[in-house]
Amino acid sequence: MTFPVLDTAAIKQAATSRLVLDTVRDALIAHAEGRTSVPPPLHMEFPEADGDCHVKAGWITGSTDFTVKIATGFYGNPGLGLPSNHGLVCVVSARTGQVRALLDDRGLLTAWRTAAAGALITDAMARPGAVTLAVFGTGEQARLQTSWLAKLRPVGTVLVHGRNPHRANALCDELDARGLRARPASAQEAAAADMIITTTPATVPVLDAAQVREGAHVTGIGTDMPHKNELPPALFHRAQLIATDDHAQCLDHGDFGHAVRAGAAAQDSDIAAGLLLKAPLDRLDTAITVADLTGVGALDAALASAVLGRLLR
Amino acid sequence: MTFPVLDTAAIKQAATSRLVLDTVRDALIAHAEGRTSVPPPLHMEFPEADGDCHVKAGWITGSTDFTVKIATGFYGNPGLGLPSNHGLVCVVSARTGQVRALLDDRGLLTAWRTAAAGALITDAMARPGAVTLAVFGTGEQARLQTSWLAKLRPVGTVLVHGRNPHRANALCDELDARGLRARPASAQEAAAADMIITTTPATVPVLDAAQVREGAHVTGIGTDMPHKNELPPALFHRAQLIATDDHAQCLDHGDFGHAVRAGAAAQDSDIAAGLLLKAPLDRLDTAITVADLTGVGALDAALASAVLGRLLR
Repeated sequence: MTFPVLDTAAIKQAATSRLVLDTVRDALIAHAEGRTSVPPPLHMEFPEADGDCHVKAGWITGSTDFTVKIATGFYGNPGLGLPSNHGLVCVVSARTGQVRALLDDRGLLTAWRTAAAGALITDAMARPGAVTLAVFGTGEQARLQTSWLAKLRPVGTVLVHGRNPHRANALCDELDARGLRARPASAQEAAAADMIITTTPATVPVLDAAQVREGAHVTGIGTDMPHKNELPPALFHRAQLIATDDHAQCLDHGDFGHAVRAGAAAQDSDIAAGLLLKAPLDRLDTAITVADLTGVGALDAALASAVLGRLLR
Repeated sequence: MTFPVLDTAAIKQAATSRLVLDTVRDALIAHAEGRTSVPPPLHMEFPEADGDCHVKAGWITGSTDFTVKIATGFYGNPGLGLPSNHGLVCVVSARTGQVRALLDDRGLLTAWRTAAAGALITDAMARPGAVTLAVFGTGEQARLQTSWLAKLRPVGTVLVHGRNPHRANALCDELDARGLRARPASAQEAAAADMIITTTPATVPVLDAAQVREGAHVTGIGTDMPHKNELPPALFHRAQLIATDDHAQCLDHGDFGHAVRAGAAAQDSDIAAGLLLKAPLDRLDTAITVADLTGVGALDAALASAVLGRLLR
């Protein structure tokens, strides 16, 4: 007898959007309240194969399971007909240390928890009457963030801004097929939307802070390394409310850190994003609000454990 | 399609002692020559369950696979009828980052590579004419180190020294059943053997350096944390050859480090154990030699990869 290995088909069946959203909301609140344990990750490089491996662990303090996530990126793989990213999530009992199961999720759970976190925070921080949504970027997260936000609140026109017009058109078609009204837009037009989500690997800001309207909310999810930067410091300077999913991480390698180093925001001017999910936000209709999300490892633990619980029930 | 999970039955079938010894020898040499990559481990604590989790990765530079080993110790488990230790070894392609297989080895490979390393180094460093073997400790490593050394060279009487006489007797019976001649012994008698292997979790030295005879060899494998200490500094002072499996690790949390901090050995007085496996050692019959082994993570990678290669062949 060994532990079960659950594949993406099983994981997709168990992870309803309700389960993912509820789990990620609770985990963000737990993280904001200091009820999570996330040790420094383990990292390896394989320069000859242009590859790397990150191992991240996380635990919601007191919960039944913790997880160890192994994620590899080998950037020459497409030339071999293989995807660049691989990995798995190992779910371990926090009571006995026994391996409960392995989730061969191919990065699915990480993508979902990222999308759910972005959608939940955007929904909580945007004006109740906000209608238009702009998304910067045309990749998997652009699609997921948009469709998950539409599960949480009515979304009017979706403005898609991408550097590659073919990819922007393809994403619009895909969103249209899901019942959303999407069309390509310039950066200037997108920056004027009620709600803005940036999902790019940009190293220079993708929008002009002066073009963001009063009353708008902006969520950035793409900046996850010190050299990346999606949101301009001037946007943080204009913001009346700044949320970060992890203060130390966002300061170290998020857009918030760029703004603090540029002198556009005070180091203690942010609030833990999870706290904004506990009760409806009291915000001015003219305020600009910003969320900087760099990804919280404890969400992996919460989501994998919840999916496993559903599968083994 | 997901990756295979190989259980202990399959692993035991593939891992012949020849395969393990050859693989560990080559890996120790590679490590001594700087051809390994071992990142700092990831560590988590679960104080309420008296548990911890260590994640260690290793790679023999240039080889096909690397490994990520998840090992948990939950010390209240025996009260629940469960073993304290759990874990698995994940074998990942160092060319594409794809998970090749999981070895649900229940710690078997770690135990074997530890025993093989101890036996190989003891065999390489002991006098050709050394006959009597003393083992301190009565646990799994006491049994394994003894029987693996007996695969490499003739072993005469085995003197077993343990604090618990029942466990010492039980180990002697077990070694007798494997064709060895074993009997319990006092610490003083054991310290006078030709070859000595210490396998305890002791925090104060288990033998008196003055009782060790000229020409003897001593291998310590139990000290793997800064607060542990099996071999007395005075033994290192008497030694004419000191080998460490990993200089930095042994200095940080091995018996060698205790000796250096006590002023009994110079910080650069050790030689990489793996180098002694390349050619027969030129040693004086009257010299005392000492090996301090703290465990090398890259051996896990080499052994798991070799076992997997045999299994998938």
